Amino acid sequence: MRKVYSLQIEYPEQTREFDNRLTKTGRRSLSHSLSHSSTDSNSSGGSDAEDPENEVSPRDKQRMNSKGNKDFCIKNIKLADFGRRQIELAEDEMTALMALRKAAQGEKPLAGAKIVGCTHVTAQTAVLFETLSGLGAQCRWAACNIYSTQNEVAAALAERDFPVFAWKGESEDDFWWCIDRCVNVEGWEPNMILDDGGDMTHWIYKKYPHIFKKVKGIVEESITGIHRLHHLSKAGKLCVPAINVNDSVTKQKFDNLYCCRESILDSLKKTADIMFGGKQVVVCGYGEVGKGCSAALKAMGSIVYVTEIDPICALQACMDGFRLTKLSDVVRQVDMVITCTGNKNVVVREHMDVMKNGCVVCNMGRSNTEINVSALKTPDLTWQHVRAQVDHIIWPDGKRMILLAEGRVLNLSSSTVPIYVLSITATTQALALIELFNAPEGRYKQDVYLLPKKLDEYVASLHLQTFDAHLTELTDDQAKYMGLSKNGPFKPNYYRY
Amino acid sequence: MRKVYSLQIEYPEQTREFDNRLTKTGRRSLSHSLSHSSTDSNSSGGSDAEDPENEVSPRDKQRMNSKGNKDFCIKNIKLADFGRRQIELAEDEMTALMALRKAAQGEKPLAGAKIVGCTHVTAQTAVLFETLSGLGAQCRWAACNIYSTQNEVAAALAERDFPVFAWKGESEDDFWWCIDRCVNVEGWEPNMILDDGGDMTHWIYKKYPHIFKKVKGIVEESITGIHRLHHLSKAGKLCVPAINVNDSVTKQKFDNLYCCRESILDSLKKTADIMFGGKQVVVCGYGEVGKGCSAALKAMGSIVYVTEIDPICALQACMDGFRLTKLSDVVRQVDMVITCTGNKNVVVREHMDVMKNGCVVCNMGRSNTEINVSALKTPDLTWQHVRAQVDHIIWPDGKRMILLAEGRVLNLSSSTVPIYVLSITATTQALALIELFNAPEGRYKQDVYLLPKKLDEYVASLHLQTFDAHLTELTDDQAKYMGLSKNGPFKPNYYRY
Amino acid sequence: MRKVYSLQIEYPEQTREFDNRLTKTGRRSLSHSLSHSSTDSNSSGGSDAEDPENEVSPRDKQRMNSKGNKDFCIKNIKLADFGRRQIELAEDEMTALMALRKAAQGEKPLAGAKIVGCTHVTAQTAVLFETLSGLGAQCRWAACNIYSTQNEVAAALAERDFPVFAWKGESEDDFWWCIDRCVNVEGWEPNMILDDGGDMTHWIYKKYPHIFKKVKGIVEESITGIHRLHHLSKAGKLCVPAINVNDSVTKQKFDNLYCCRESILDSLKKTADIMFGGKQVVVCGYGEVGKGCSAALKAMGSIVYVTEIDPICALQACMDGFRLTKLSDVVRQVDMVITCTGNKNVVVREHMDVMKNGCVVCNMGRSNTEINVSALKTPDLTWQHVRAQVDHIIWPDGKRMILLAEGRVLNLSSSTVPIYVLSITATTQALALIELFNAPEGRYKQDVYLLPKKLDEYVASLHLQTFDAHLTELTDDQAKYMGLSKNGPFKPNYYRY
Amino acid sequence: MRKVYSLQIEYPEQTREFDNRLTKTGRRSLSHSLSHSSTDSNSSGGSDAEDPENEVSPRDKQRMNSKGNKDFCIKNIKLADFGRRQIELAEDEMTALMALRKAAQGEKPLAGAKIVGCTHVTAQTAVLFETLSGLGAQCRWAACNIYSTQNEVAAALAERDFPVFAWKGESEDDFWWCIDRCVNVEGWEPNMILDDGGDMTHWIYKKYPHIFKKVKGIVEESITGIHRLHHLSKAGKLCVPAINVNDSVTKQKFDNLYCCRESILDSLKKTADIMFGGKQVVVCGYGEVGKGCSAALKAMGSIVYVTEIDPICALQACMDGFRLTKLSDVVRQVDMVITCTGNKNVVVREHMDVMKNGCVVCNMGRSNTEINVSALKTPDLTWQHVRAQVDHIIWPDGKRMILLAEGRVLNLSSSTVPIYVLSITATTQALALIELFNAPEGRYKQDVYLLPKKLDEYVASLHLQTFDAHLTELTDDQAKYMGLSKNGPFKPNYYRY
Repeated sequence: MRKVYSLQIEYPEQTREFDNRLTKTGRRSLSHSLSHSSTDSNSSGGSDAEDPENEVSPRDKQRMNSKGNKDFCIKNIKLADFGRRQIELAEDEMTALMALRKAAQGEKPLAGAKIVGCTHVTAQTAVLFETLSGLGAQCRWAACNIYSTQNEVAAALAERDFPVFAWKGESEDDFWWCIDRCVNVEGWEPNMILDDGGDMTHWIYKKYPHIFKKVKGIVEESITGIHRLHHLSKAGKLCVPAINVNDSVTKQKFDNLYCCRESILDSLKKTADIMFGGKQVVVCGYGEVGKGCSAALKAMGSIVYVTEIDPICALQACMDGFRLTKLSDVVRQVDMVITCTGNKNVVVREHMDVMKNGCVVCNMGRSNTEINVSALKTPDLTWQHVRAQVDHIIWPDGKRMILLAEGRVLNLSSSTVPIYVLSITATTQALALIELFNAPEGRYKQDVYLLPKKLDEYVASLHLQTFDAHLTELTDDQAKYMGLSKNGPFKPNYYRY
Repeated sequence: MRKVYSLQIEYPEQTREFDNRLTKTGRRSLSHSLSHSSTDSNSSGGSDAEDPENEVSPRDKQRMNSKGNKDFCIKNIKLADFGRRQIELAEDEMTALMALRKAAQGEKPLAGAKIVGCTHVTAQTAVLFETLSGLGAQCRWAACNIYSTQNEVAAALAERDFPVFAWKGESEDDFWWCIDRCVNVEGWEPNMILDDGGDMTHWIYKKYPHIFKKVKGIVEESITGIHRLHHLSKAGKLCVPAINVNDSVTKQKFDNLYCCRESILDSLKKTADIMFGGKQVVVCGYGEVGKGCSAALKAMGSIVYVTEIDPICALQACMDGFRLTKLSDVVRQVDMVITCTGNKNVVVREHMDVMKNGCVVCNMGRSNTEINVSALKTPDLTWQHVRAQVDHIIWPDGKRMILLAEGRVLNLSSSTVPIYVLSITATTQALALIELFNAPEGRYKQDVYLLPKKLDEYVASLHLQTFDAHLTELTDDQAKYMGLSKNGPFKPNYYRY
Repeated sequence: MRKVYSLQIEYPEQTREFDNRLTKTGRRSLSHSLSHSSTDSNSSGGSDAEDPENEVSPRDKQRMNSKGNKDFCIKNIKLADFGRRQIELAEDEMTALMALRKAAQGEKPLAGAKIVGCTHVTAQTAVLFETLSGLGAQCRWAACNIYSTQNEVAAALAERDFPVFAWKGESEDDFWWCIDRCVNVEGWEPNMILDDGGDMTHWIYKKYPHIFKKVKGIVEESITGIHRLHHLSKAGKLCVPAINVNDSVTKQKFDNLYCCRESILDSLKKTADIMFGGKQVVVCGYGEVGKGCSAALKAMGSIVYVTEIDPICALQACMDGFRLTKLSDVVRQVDMVITCTGNKNVVVREHMDVMKNGCVVCNMGRSNTEINVSALKTPDLTWQHVRAQVDHIIWPDGKRMILLAEGRVLNLSSSTVPIYVLSITATTQALALIELFNAPEGRYKQDVYLLPKKLDEYVASLHLQTFDAHLTELTDDQAKYMGLSKNGPFKPNYYRY
Repeated sequence: MRKVYSLQIEYPEQTREFDNRLTKTGRRSLSHSLSHSSTDSNSSGGSDAEDPENEVSPRDKQRMNSKGNKDFCIKNIKLADFGRRQIELAEDEMTALMALRKAAQGEKPLAGAKIVGCTHVTAQTAVLFETLSGLGAQCRWAACNIYSTQNEVAAALAERDFPVFAWKGESEDDFWWCIDRCVNVEGWEPNMILDDGGDMTHWIYKKYPHIFKKVKGIVEESITGIHRLHHLSKAGKLCVPAINVNDSVTKQKFDNLYCCRESILDSLKKTADIMFGGKQVVVCGYGEVGKGCSAALKAMGSIVYVTEIDPICALQACMDGFRLTKLSDVVRQVDMVITCTGNKNVVVREHMDVMKNGCVVCNMGRSNTEINVSALKTPDLTWQHVRAQVDHIIWPDGKRMILLAEGRVLNLSSSTVPIYVLSITATTQALALIELFNAPEGRYKQDVYLLPKKLDEYVASLHLQTFDAHLTELTDDQAKYMGLSKNGPFKPNYYRY
């Protein structure tokens, strides 16, 4: 059986992408906000800058927390107090998750759950981690990214006896070693997987496939990870149920529409630093991201053109007051080109050749291929790096095109994710774990599921309190008239919101 | 077998609703616009006001058109020229349908189709009627509403030898007689049904069930009709495929979001005639209709509160900048209450008792029960009818509440449907007929289907030209990258737009 | 001296315009709203349709009210009760004026004032009239328009012994006779003039110039009247101070920006009945009216182009997100052309020749000359009147242009003025009268003044309560820091708002 | 006479403020944008980091440019090439000024002008400087701020023989020495002053008052400088005409409305890093800045409350859809408090005591006193500096308030000024200099003037080209009808835009 699974991981595109996943902060996954202070306050708060601890690899020196516990591997346990403060700040902001923690505390819905987790290790995920624990679960944790760990947060978790294996600046070997330490421990048989990118799942498939006999389910957050799960499923090799939390309605709306509506402005200001009023902009693609970008720029006084391939989205653009054009028809006149298509080669050299001087070009989409940047690496063009995320590409006649983030997804690098969005993700993950762990036999097959709508609604309802928002409850009579349960779900699955 | 079907129609709620359907213009189904001139120009153009023809019931006097054809039953054939002008004006505006007519003319995709239709008989449906005919179909037509027929349009159709059976002011008996004349003709076996309200389908089920053996499908446009089809389907009695055109994405967006965004303002101005700026408004329900109403009023400077039962829609309201409250928490302070829930008893007497003087109350939803109007018919309250669609309800202390349209759906009566929306409906109907008629054996079972997404996209694309909008085409390379066909469909079925 | 003044009135353009002023409802001066019921409820409420009173000219038959008073001339005293209800409804809505009435009642700031008024005679002006009276003034009143009088309101005033001389459908001779009856009465020497159009002022200048010796001031509301006053002033013939209430900040913002933002949508729906979403529109002129129209249409999803002659307003249009073009550059592609310039011949035949089929053309400006309609009265074009306010002009090739209100100011005829705007006007008039009547010797010279900013602010503050809006008060310390009085004025005169 | 002037400078508030002016970058005066590369590219481009030149004070070592010229005093002439590139980039963006340079080049309208200037010395002001020179002026230049000079730009100017006296990091003594070197040179008698802050003017008044005999005028840009000029004028000591360029319409709209509409979002993201959607915000003050902030936040989905003292602005807030409240009525519930009043102590301790946890407080106004920060410096509160511009103030119960920029004007420090706004300022300055220099005797008295409207319009028109915006020209006939010149001015002075 092991053989079967080990075959699974050898498809080449995953190998190729590996470095990417490890060396880059994943899409919209990190936040600052209150607890951002971690970075800046290091000096005053808990700097590890000159600590000798920092010289040694965590794997080479076993640390012990104040209670004598050694079942963790982190950079510097001395940062625990500072990290605890970060976690407390994050708790203040992640009110939905805290409300869930409080609400479900009595029931301990995760009593008996043994979770192996692989996510970013930050103040926000620490709140998730401790919530799962508060609901009865035992957890072991590794980082899904070699650079994103907040060492002080890892220290705070370790100090509280959480088995966490993560530090900032892991090597690839460290990365897999940490994951292995979560799974492969004497006397520990995980029965739930929480994954972000699919690496934990992959590792278990590869090394310890027998574990799946006991696993009740996988909760996966990233597009990549979901893609891998669907791959397994299609190949008939997925042997436990999985919940795709990425595509829940609430999470999607925030990740794409609401988040990008703000981050497009933020990212453009931080990089190109242009005034929006009166500028002509073309937004390529009118999905949720394109809708958010277009609305924001219009509100700031830009004149926005939209391109689309899908006639329905195109008609929406028209009704929202945008001129629908082909890129080639407006590319000469616009001041900015923003791609939000998920497609490749949307902006190509022949477009860039005719842009006017000073045109800003950037990518808000999902892949890094929307702008054909490689076509700009020709001897006739001069690249001038003017500041972080900003390059000028200069044509022989002196025309400059301003390329942001070298054509990579802009708001990944230049804007932070609002903690509110992280809170939605974490709450969704917690509910998905509870659902899979407690689902009666037979509710879920060996397949990839979306979060049940009722839970999706519950995530939303937990987040309403931030806005001091008050839901109306159906009367018995109304519920009957509508043919609904008073507790939801309130909409059919195909409802478009 | 006949018996089986005849049972079908006796469920009481349909009987009760019958009068409603017949005596009231259906939801958002009539337009003026260019061709609206029909009404006003009657006097100059083709008045039938004092024509002796008008004295006689159409059923009592057989008319003949100029070619000697008598296979129709209408009010006054002399109005044909005037009606033809109306149809021509409608053609000018229904460019999408005309484009379809032109595009598919060569293929005659409906050659062999024998369609019985039951819709409003207006200039716009005449364009549909003649389009179907142009694509190869034979058609016979009756009105779905006893009041909505434009006599001059019926005349114009009759003059061109279309078998049309409809006039303004039919009796209930006339209504069924007309329908029967469409179906029950020597040598005619219909094989397609185009219905709006389900009466044609109902009649055939009741009287001529054998016809269904030859029928390739039903295309139904109204919510009521679809409800009846689902009822049949659940009961296992639907014996042909049906397409629900009402719930196609394109149609829905226009019917609800785009149309209501405009008609809420229009309807309120025409009735309550209030200034929107600075007014406090509560919108109950944040579905598509509520989203449209809220956005429009916000844009006009109103302060909008929203109530919701569904946490996801509620969170959308928050992110769109509306305070989410319970009705009872703001009802004392608002200047307007607008219901868009589809539910009943959303506004009840106890809300109305505490509203401030001059508060305007209206219903933009689907049913007429959202405002509990019957609770206002008590001896302590005085009703004062101040003008069409406007009543003042006066409390003993002199407080006035301004009730619009007696609580019935407001924009049905006080606003017209943009011809653009009618064009979307008609184009959707035509494509659904073509699809069902040409579908290979087995594609559709005896069930109710949504319009295939590809056709939904085609409807949208035909309407883009009105806006001089230009779609982008995928390159081969891009299509492959996205895993899409270059001609669509471009989105999975669950895509939320 | 009489001779001097009589010369004044003979300038020909006023004579020419006379008919216009008399036969047309003045710019934005009439409202319906609550009290609009007057028109519709006539039948049930106080119909004068078949009353024999209606046959006789009011001048031919002296009426008497229930107290035996005969000092008035109106159509039908029996309508008094019905009219009183209208006035009461208007009082409910004109809360600002009622608040002023209440606030100043004790002081009687108009005690001793003898006002001759010439305005529309409607429920709203009746509230003004009775307010002035409540503040101590004696008044005599005539209509400024031969058609706009609400007979039932005039009756209600007469029944309360107000000397009012006005009826609907006066002849020109009646018009001047009524005005004369206000001025020329034994034992009555007016000392204040409240005018709307300048006719009362004109008549006194012409016939009774000696009266000006006692007159403390003129309050004029209309642009025409102000123009006439400036004319007098320039010619050195204005012998009393006058306040131009039309140009007060508060009134201007409402008349132009806020009112037109709503009435453009309302007027277009009522006439052309088009859908706004996705439509391309050019707005000519970006003053307050143009700003209101552009913002409203943009909010409804139209794509708006703007034309301007003034570079500053043009730059505002750019920053507000509108493309600034010349009319000739976009006139081929737009679906609507809206003029708001105050200029003439903005849209000329050569523009109209190239418009696309179905283009809607209308005028929201001040004058009726913005669209060169006379250039459309050529033999090659066919005019088709399709309904009230809507004409189709048909070119030889079949192209239709849709002309609204025959090019006259659109919202005058197709939209009502919100009562809120009327309330601002009336309150401004009342405060201007109080100011002029009580101003110490020397504050005002023989010139035309704007309303003092402090009073302008007071008008605004009286209207804030409608919105349940709460002003902040300066602390002593803050007032000192800002160099302001705590009661205003808060801004220098040149402040741009 | 000298004595008289020297008295002038001794009023204490100026002395007190001196440090402020010198040590802080002035309000909205610096930009990055294209030419911002200066900072970041230093390393690659023209780093002076390790240059021995940097050790020596510029005053201690006379430099010489490549042509042997020594009439300047700057940090490091070697940076000239790098600075020239910055200037060229700025020229690319300051198209309006470049257009003016080109348009007026032939006429040399400043031939004979001898200008002493005191402004920031940046790439943008260098473009102004060289434009004045191109139009015929001789200029000598000093910095108005001891920190804001771009050394490479000063070098580039010096290399072209411009007498510039400025470097980054001047001492106070250096500051006045540089100014003196501009004025006090053998054989040089300045006849125009271009000032930003009033220091040049002040120095000449103090030291060389005789110079004013030849001075044709002063052009002043800053609020402080204008305040000083008005002070002189009131005291009867202003002996030449001055133009206040700060209050020109075009400049004001950009400085306040358009710039703040964008910078509020930018500044909040860069500092507090919060999500705007759904947040409740109170904006104190609804002038241009408040209008910009409110509109931007509303567009991002915030629920905005407004406070005002002026009833007219308050009514505008209502009509724009904002609830008008007192701060104390909403301060408990809001997520952000933004002051834009220009007043002091708008937010005081008692407000801050009741704010909810996590409330963000910031100042977008003109003065640094709007938030009473000193009241927060009490022993019971803990200040925690979390990152640049962000402090947490912690109450004994653990509540945190997030204070931005320590209550100082937020967008000064956290947002850059769009180069477009700088271009408007520079163009306005150039036109004001031309106007004063060429004005016929008697047009300007010894007073402070606003820029003539015609020039204000010209500034706007020069900036329209950036937007590819096309003005309409009046026909002769239209100009006559409107009583306007075809070249403007198009509006009366009191026009409110």
